[in-house]
Formats: sequence, structure tokens, C-alpha cells
Amino acid sequence: MEVIRSNFKDNLSKVYEAIEEADFLAIDGEFSGISDGPSVSALTNGFDTPEERYQKLKKHSMDFLLFQFGLCTFKYDHTEEKYIMKSFNFYIFPKPFNRSSPDVKFVCQSSSIDFLANQGFDFNKVFRNGIPYLNQEEERQLREQYDEKRSQANGAGSLSYISPNATKCPVVIPEDQKKIIDKIVEQIEEFLKNEENESLELEPCTGYPKGIHVETLESDKKERYIVISKVDEEERKRREQQKQAKEQEELNDAVGFSRVVHAIANSGKLVIGHNMLLDVMHTIHQFYCPLPDDLSEFKEVTSCVFPRLLDTKLMASTQPFKDIINNTSLAELEKRLKEVPFSPPKVGSFLSPPKNHVSARSKLIEPFFNKLFLMRVMDIPYLNLQGPDLQPKRDHVLHVTFPKEWKTSDLYQLFSAFGNIQVSWIDDTSAFVSLSQPEQVQIAVNTSRYAESYRIQTYAEYVEKKHEEKRAKRKCTEDSWKEMERKRLKTQGSPYISQSRYYCINSFTGTSIVGKRSMSPIQEETGPDNLEEEGVPEDQTNSYAESPPDVKKRAKRFKKIKSEQVSAGGLTSNSTEIFEVPETW
Amino acid sequence: MEVIRSNFKDNLSKVYEAIEEADFLAIDGEFSGISDGPSVSALTNGFDTPEERYQKLKKHSMDFLLFQFGLCTFKYDHTEEKYIMKSFNFYIFPKPFNRSSPDVKFVCQSSSIDFLANQGFDFNKVFRNGIPYLNQEEERQLREQYDEKRSQANGAGSLSYISPNATKCPVVIPEDQKKIIDKIVEQIEEFLKNEENESLELEPCTGYPKGIHVETLESDKKERYIVISKVDEEERKRREQQKQAKEQEELNDAVGFSRVVHAIANSGKLVIGHNMLLDVMHTIHQFYCPLPDDLSEFKEVTSCVFPRLLDTKLMASTQPFKDIINNTSLAELEKRLKEVPFSPPKVGSFLSPPKNHVSARSKLIEPFFNKLFLMRVMDIPYLNLQGPDLQPKRDHVLHVTFPKEWKTSDLYQLFSAFGNIQVSWIDDTSAFVSLSQPEQVQIAVNTSRYAESYRIQTYAEYVEKKHEEKRAKRKCTEDSWKEMERKRLKTQGSPYISQSRYYCINSFTGTSIVGKRSMSPIQEETGPDNLEEEGVPEDQTNSYAESPPDVKKRAKRFKKIKSEQVSAGGLTSNSTEIFEVPETW
Repeated sequence: MEVIRSNFKDNLSKVYEAIEEADFLAIDGEFSGISDGPSVSALTNGFDTPEERYQKLKKHSMDFLLFQFGLCTFKYDHTEEKYIMKSFNFYIFPKPFNRSSPDVKFVCQSSSIDFLANQGFDFNKVFRNGIPYLNQEEERQLREQYDEKRSQANGAGSLSYISPNATKCPVVIPEDQKKIIDKIVEQIEEFLKNEENESLELEPCTGYPKGIHVETLESDKKERYIVISKVDEEERKRREQQKQAKEQEELNDAVGFSRVVHAIANSGKLVIGHNMLLDVMHTIHQFYCPLPDDLSEFKEVTSCVFPRLLDTKLMASTQPFKDIINNTSLAELEKRLKEVPFSPPKVGSFLSPPKNHVSARSKLIEPFFNKLFLMRVMDIPYLNLQGPDLQPKRDHVLHVTFPKEWKTSDLYQLFSAFGNIQVSWIDDTSAFVSLSQPEQVQIAVNTSRYAESYRIQTYAEYVEKKHEEKRAKRKCTEDSWKEMERKRLKTQGSPYISQSRYYCINSFTGTSIVGKRSMSPIQEETGPDNLEEEGVPEDQTNSYAESPPDVKKRAKRFKKIKSEQVSAGGLTSNSTEIFEVPETW
Repeated sequence: MEVIRSNFKDNLSKVYEAIEEADFLAIDGEFSGISDGPSVSALTNGFDTPEERYQKLKKHSMDFLLFQFGLCTFKYDHTEEKYIMKSFNFYIFPKPFNRSSPDVKFVCQSSSIDFLANQGFDFNKVFRNGIPYLNQEEERQLREQYDEKRSQANGAGSLSYISPNATKCPVVIPEDQKKIIDKIVEQIEEFLKNEENESLELEPCTGYPKGIHVETLESDKKERYIVISKVDEEERKRREQQKQAKEQEELNDAVGFSRVVHAIANSGKLVIGHNMLLDVMHTIHQFYCPLPDDLSEFKEVTSCVFPRLLDTKLMASTQPFKDIINNTSLAELEKRLKEVPFSPPKVGSFLSPPKNHVSARSKLIEPFFNKLFLMRVMDIPYLNLQGPDLQPKRDHVLHVTFPKEWKTSDLYQLFSAFGNIQVSWIDDTSAFVSLSQPEQVQIAVNTSRYAESYRIQTYAEYVEKKHEEKRAKRKCTEDSWKEMERKRLKTQGSPYISQSRYYCINSFTGTSIVGKRSMSPIQEETGPDNLEEEGVPEDQTNSYAESPPDVKKRAKRFKKIKSEQVSAGGLTSNSTEIFEVPETW
């Protein structure tokens, strides 16, 4: 079902219901671009650490717009032995909703746009009919604006209306505006004397005079004008309530698609995606809060918005599937999963081969919970959202710098004495080169000591130098600008970024490692839905608040799950088996 | 007429013809956004200098995409006494044309997109069917790529094909690729022995083996594969020529819409726009070269691309029109020009009141040539493209800094003793305040000397401090980074920006002031088309080269026009009359 601005409100309860009844959900986003760097290869290097990858994606991918959000809900019908699937395709666009609303700028990448155009993507649906949204900070600000206006109106028994944020001292009327103000005052006096007229419409202007019941309305031409009415107390209250209801509706309309994301978050349901790191980052960035500075903070935010994630690209790239799935791209994977030894699940009512149903809480998929596939990283298969990341030994890796004319073949040439090597380009003039044996590393460094055109260092040396440079850079910038910036900073409040985050504050213990993951994924599960009772509290699965999810409650639950998992025993050795990580980990 | 990718080539000669026969042209662009700053008011201040305004627009507006270009050509039919108008509406999109083509990123501003959506703008036409384009540097690079490939192919009598840029030494085949290479060598040997087969299609791969006639083709799946054919010399030549013709066509397709802009530039025709500074900047930036760093360089480039410009917003804002035109926005202006004392010109065949025709070379419009309207600048009505800009005295202007809570009313309050003032906001904490009399300026500065919450300085002091800061900033940055950057710079060539400019090098004399402007705009012209003989050489008006305009010739002509104008006498005093500039200029 396609959901656009005009049918969003009418279908929202249908969406809530689908999420509520579902066993699990699947999501997928379409973006206006992927990388604002020179190329995708500049964005991803085979020896990125998870922290580095996160920083790169945050810096180079978040200015694009997530403008289509696909949501599929799956509910298993035990009687019919099939899945009931409901799919929703939301078109998203940050249409400004009033004069003071944020005017969002987003980047488009022509290759991505061209790709979507070739798929028949309907850009008019996005730009003309996209559903608006607000992140939590924007929603809070808008709510405050409404509250302030209302409290002013309520305290206005004295009938004195003041424009928001105006200084309270008398206003000096500029010479050239005196005429128009005089005319308005005259009109109002005339109107007050006159018994016949119930209301008075003033010419469009921006000032707020004192009056009786004053309303600012907007004409079709977007000119604002003031209506002044004589009303009794009861009528005044009725109008006030009407206005409040209208304001609440406006607020809901402005929050728009974010309400769907809140519902997904509040449901605590398992959310499935394919290569979903960017989907998760964009969803949080666009509908919750600007992405945090550090990866560890990002993991915390994610645990609030998506407490249970499953990345099918990671599954397909992992034993035992790895050996029987050659290509893990979504289209190829779909084809492969229709052949033996796989058999497709019964979905809807149009698939015939009957198949046992795997619960969303099955232990079979537990090893993959909250681990997101890390694309094009050599030795770290996933980003672990629920604990520290894998730290592979990179003692066989060299960092090489060279003239920009060099090609991969030059590197093969240079290292021809060392047998098999792997090259991971960083930029025009540097690359990581991994040797087959760590013992060769020091030999390579030594033989290059007096080379002029290129330079070789160990991975450890490279990391150390990078940290040093970072410290030096920070210090230099701080010193140079401190003097100049001091005056300006004095008059400013704390910067926006620190105010705009809104997520559960939840310290990571660093030792938390997800437990109950020792079984192989193909092992038969001990019983269906066996985690339903102990897992998620009832109130979490059934509450779909209109407001943002109760973040504190979520944080508490998250801690509980983590401690349970930790107490259930460590994973390290078993994880090693499943993900085929070298013993050095 | 709507022109999109699919009908562009078929209609190009029609467009060329329309430009060639026209007396003058009119252009208008639609953009994906206007300002990437926090607001348009941050982009424009009433006391911007032309240099400052240029820098602001360059910094905050050029990342948007010009995605629709409107062109109207007007030719006066003396027999029918009416204008023949031809209008073209080009949809533009930087669709990548091959693997190595630039992947353009552009910004969209949601308010601008929403505005266009409300006007019924068809985004699918842009993104699915937009005409591609290249600027001159990109065109040059692509041409070089083709030339290099061709010269390699021509020198390949030895039948040795080398992948471009490959080092010439033997390639070491990595261990894991040896099997596949061995298999290919075997296949080729088999194929060479076998008399029956005329060609051999290899499996998709990226290496180039030695062969007979080798072609790399692309499958529907965008996989590249190699076809090796046995051909005699004649057939080889025929295929080579075919390939060259195909490459030339590909090149033309890639240059795309820029060819229309080249034709406009080469025509030297008068180009009319309304508030056209951004249109001119975007057109040059997108289809010619990155905008130069300085305003004076920008004027030089503009003289090459648009040698004769006319801005109708400037005309409408200038005496004698100023007094009888209240609103100079395009829609309002159109309405007003249908009423007395104006009468609309006869256009096409559907307007009835007959009217004399004003030649595009008429002296009546000369005072406005190559002057672009400067929006929202208090005392500089236009950007003068053909000489130094006006330098108004700003000795009645103060620069004020204050806490960010201050509103305009606070400033009126502060200066209430000085009578009428005008406020031009710079940002949250500063503004220009102009007093009615310059004598008050020093009084205001003196009385504020001990104020704590705000600070007042003269405009001259403000300018001086800004220059100082700029110098300090530059020095600091240079010092801090010099050390770190030295090593990297050593291996790099000169930066891209300095290579990518391509326009006439043409020193501005600084004293050049456009002559022949002493007559009032409503004065009757002395004779029709009186400049036609002496003005532009015949070869300029009739040549529509496929290649970029002959920039050297243009530069020469530009110099000639300028020197004629200078020798024809100064304008200053007359310009003052026409544009109502204060005597202090």
C-alpha cells in the first residue's frame, strides 16, 4: 500500500494495528544518495574499524534524504500455517509546515537518482505528496511554541495580547508607520463603539494591537491578517478549545511519519533489514536526533529506537549459509532462497509449499540479534550494537604511501617477494597492504627504510600516528581560534547539538557480551515462542503511544536484557565458531 | 516547447536556428534551492558591497542545481510589425554517462521544492528525462580520454593492447587469479587455432589480454566482457572509423545542454532576464567553469559567456519607470505593463494593439546594458559587469553588536533620540543601523563607549576590522597547517580549481566606464538598428560552433567595445541622474 501525505492520517491506525499484531517487521529505505565523498571506495576501506566506518558514514551519508520508507509486517497464522504480510510504502518529504518551521536542505547524488529513475521511482510522489516529519527536538520546540502561545492566551484575562518573545517595554513606533497604526487604532475604536458588527478584519500587517478576542488568520495569499471579535466568556472558552484541538492536530500532522517510527520503537518488535546499517542510521538521524559523536553513544540510541535488529546480509555471509550462498545481494539472495536446501515460507495466500514457521523469538536467529553487517570490511563481519566490537589483530597489515601515479599493479610489483598480498585503497596516495604472514611485516618495513618514492609502516604505527595527528590538530585549532572566538562565545548559549539529543542515557559496561548464542543457527529450536514470557514486558508490546517512546522505561529494559545476557555466560568462543573469526581475536 | 533528453538531439538545430535569427533572447532558470544558509535574510544584507554579495551567493547558492532552463527567442517581423517568439523549456539533469563520469551531488532546499511542487512542476521530467551537460573542463577531459584511447588503438599495429595508464612493466599475476588467466589464455589459443569461429566472447572480467581485434563491450547487466575477432586490415579500419563516429556522438551527447549555452554565448545576442544575477551565476557555474574567486574575474568570464545582458528588474526599479511601477516582481510587473502609459508589444499572432518595435540595439536600453539588479541592497542598485562598481558613502551607517535576545524594537529604542533609522540585520547579534544624518554617527559612537551589553562602531571601522581579521585568519591557518601539509603537497600537482577555469584572460582597466549613456531611457532613438554595422562583427552573430565559443576572439571584441565606450566619453554624471544615486558617489 502506498502511503502519501493525503492518505497518511486515514491509514495511520491501520499501520499501528499491523505493527501491534506482527511477530516481526522488515524495513528498507531509499535515499537521495549514498556518499558525498569522491567515490564509495573512498568511503569504505577494508580495514576500517567499526568506529571509523561509523564516522565516515555519519560524515558522508547523513546529508542525503531518506525519502521512501518500506515497512512490512509479518504475523504467523498458526491455523493456516502461513504468514500474513502487510506492506506499506511511505513517501517522505520535509515540507515546511509554517513560517518558522525548519527549511531542510538535503543532498542528491546523481548516480543514486539515476538508479531510482531507472527503477521507475516516482519523484513527484516524494516532492509533491511526501509525508512530513519532525525529529524529537523539533517536536519539542513546536510543542513549546504552542504551549507558550496558549499560556499567554489563558493568562490574558486582562485582554492584553502580546506577540511571542516581544520585549515588555513600550514599543517606539517608527515615523513612517505612525499613519497606519493611527488608522488601526481609529478602526478599533470605531468597532468597539458600534453595536452591530460582531467582528472586524484588519488589513494585512504584522503588528499585534490590544483587543478583545484577537485571532491571526492567514489568507489564501499567505498574508496574515487580524480578526477582532466581541464574544462572551463561554464563547471565548469554546473558541479556545477549538483552537487547542486544531493546534494538537497541526502538531500531529507536523510530526507526521515520525509517529510510525515511534510506533515501531515502542513495539519492541524484531526489525529485519538487509545490509541495514545505513537504514538504521538514517532513520535515527531523520526521525529521532542528530547522530551522536561516538559509536558507543550511537549504540545506546539504537537500543532505544530499534531494540531488536536482524541483518539478513550478515546471516547470509555467515556459516553455515556462507558455503551455499554465493552472492548475498538482495536480488540474488531471493533467487537462491527459492532453491534447495531452502524452501520459502508461506506468505499471504499465494505460495504453495507448506513450511514450519520460525518464531521471531526463536533461538535459531539469536546469534544474529543486534549485529549489523559491515560492508567491505576484511576482518570484522558486523557492527555489534550490544557490546564492544571485535578487535582483529592486524599484525600482518602494512600502511603504504606512494606517488599518486601508482596503480594496484605497482603495489603487487613492490611486494612480489612476499607472495600473496591484498590491497585496500585508502586514497590516491595510500593503501593498506596485507601480507600472508605477520613475520614478513618487519622485513618489508626494514627493506623500505631508505626508499624515496614510497613509505611503509606497520598498521600499529599508522594508528598511533593518526591519533597523534588528531591530538595535534585539535590543539592547534583550539589555540588559534580561542582568542578570536572568545567574545562571540560569551554571548551565545550552548550549541544546538548538545541540546538536540534525546535518548536514553545508559552507560555501557564495556564487558557486556550477548549470551545464549552458543547454538549453531541450523540447530532445531527447543520450542516455539519460548522466549515470549520471559522476554519483553506486556506493556511494551502493546503500547503505541502517540508521543515519543518512553525512553526511560526502554533504557531500564535494555539494561535488564543486557544483564541477563551477561549472566547467561560469555559468547566469545562460540561467536568465533559461527563467524569464522581468526583465533587471534 | 518542452525539451528533454529523448527529443533534445532532434530539436537542437531548431534551437540553433531560433537563436541565430533572433533579435534578442530571454532566459530564466529554476533551481533546486536558493540559499543553504540558515535563511535568505542571512544571505542578503542591505549594506552588502557587490563583492560581498557575489561571495555570499557563490558560497551559499552554487551547490543547488539549475534543473530547468527557459529560453525565449524574439525576432521582429517588420512586415507584420510583430515579434515572432519561440520558447523552449529545457529540463536538465547531470545523468552520469559512463563509469568515469563525474557523479554530481547537488543540494535541494525543501521550501524551494515545495514552491515548485505547488506550481505543478514535474520532477519526474527532470530526474528521469533531464538533458545531461558538461562544463568546459569536463568536456576537455572527456575529449582527451577519447583521444588517448584512439591514439593507443592507432599505434597498435603491433596488436598489443594495453589498458590505459597501466605501467609498462610485466604484470605479476596474483596467486588466486592464476587459474582464471590460464583458462583465458587456453581459450584464446584454441580460438586462434580454430578456423570456424570469427569471434570469441570471454567471461566478464577486468583484465586486457593480448589479441587480434579486441573490443570491450558491456552486457545488459553492466558487466564488461571482451570480444576478440579475426579481421583483415580494411575491416579493421572500417570498424575503427565506426567507433570514432560513435565516440564523437557520445561526446556530443555528454556535452548535452551546454551546447545550447555555447550557442547563446557565440551568438553575442542581447540576453534579457528578470533579477538575473543568480541565473547568470548558475549558468556559468554549471555549464562553463567553477565560479572565479573574485568579482572582477567573474565579470571577465561573464563578458565571454553573456557579452550583452539586460536586467528588467533594474529597469523597472529605475527612473522614469520607478515612479509608475509600484511592484517590480515579475507577475505584478507583467500586469502593470498592460496598462497605460505602457502598451504591450505585438508578439506571435495573438495580440492585437499594434506598436512600434524597439531594436535590441536601440540606444534607449543602453544605460541598462550589462548591469544586473542587486536585490535588497540599500544604496547600490546594480552590479556593473563592465567596469568598477558604485561606491556609495556610508558615513551615516553604524555597525551594532548586541545580545541575541534583542529584536528590531530594541534597536529603535536604543536610537530613539536620533529620529528615523533603518535597520539591516546581519545575524542574531549584529546589524547595520543607518541614521538620517552623518553628523549623528560620532555622537552615537561616543555615547555608547561605556555600554556593556552592546557595541557601536562606524561602518568604516567595521570594514577595517573585518579586513584585519581576514588577514589574521589566513596567516593563522597557513602557519598551523604548513608543517602538516608539506609532505602531502609535495606529491600532488597543482590543485584542480586553477586548472579548471577556461575563459578569456582580459585585464580590467578599472577606469572603463560604459559610454553613450547620456540620453534618458524614454528619449526617441535616432534611427533603428543604428549600431548594427559598427557593433558586432558579422562572423560573431552567425557562427554557432559545436565547440565552446572562440574565447580569444570574444576577449578581443570585448576589449574593442570597452575602448570604444571609454573613448566615447564618461558616464558618471549621467548615470547619477538615471539611477538616482546620492551626490556623494
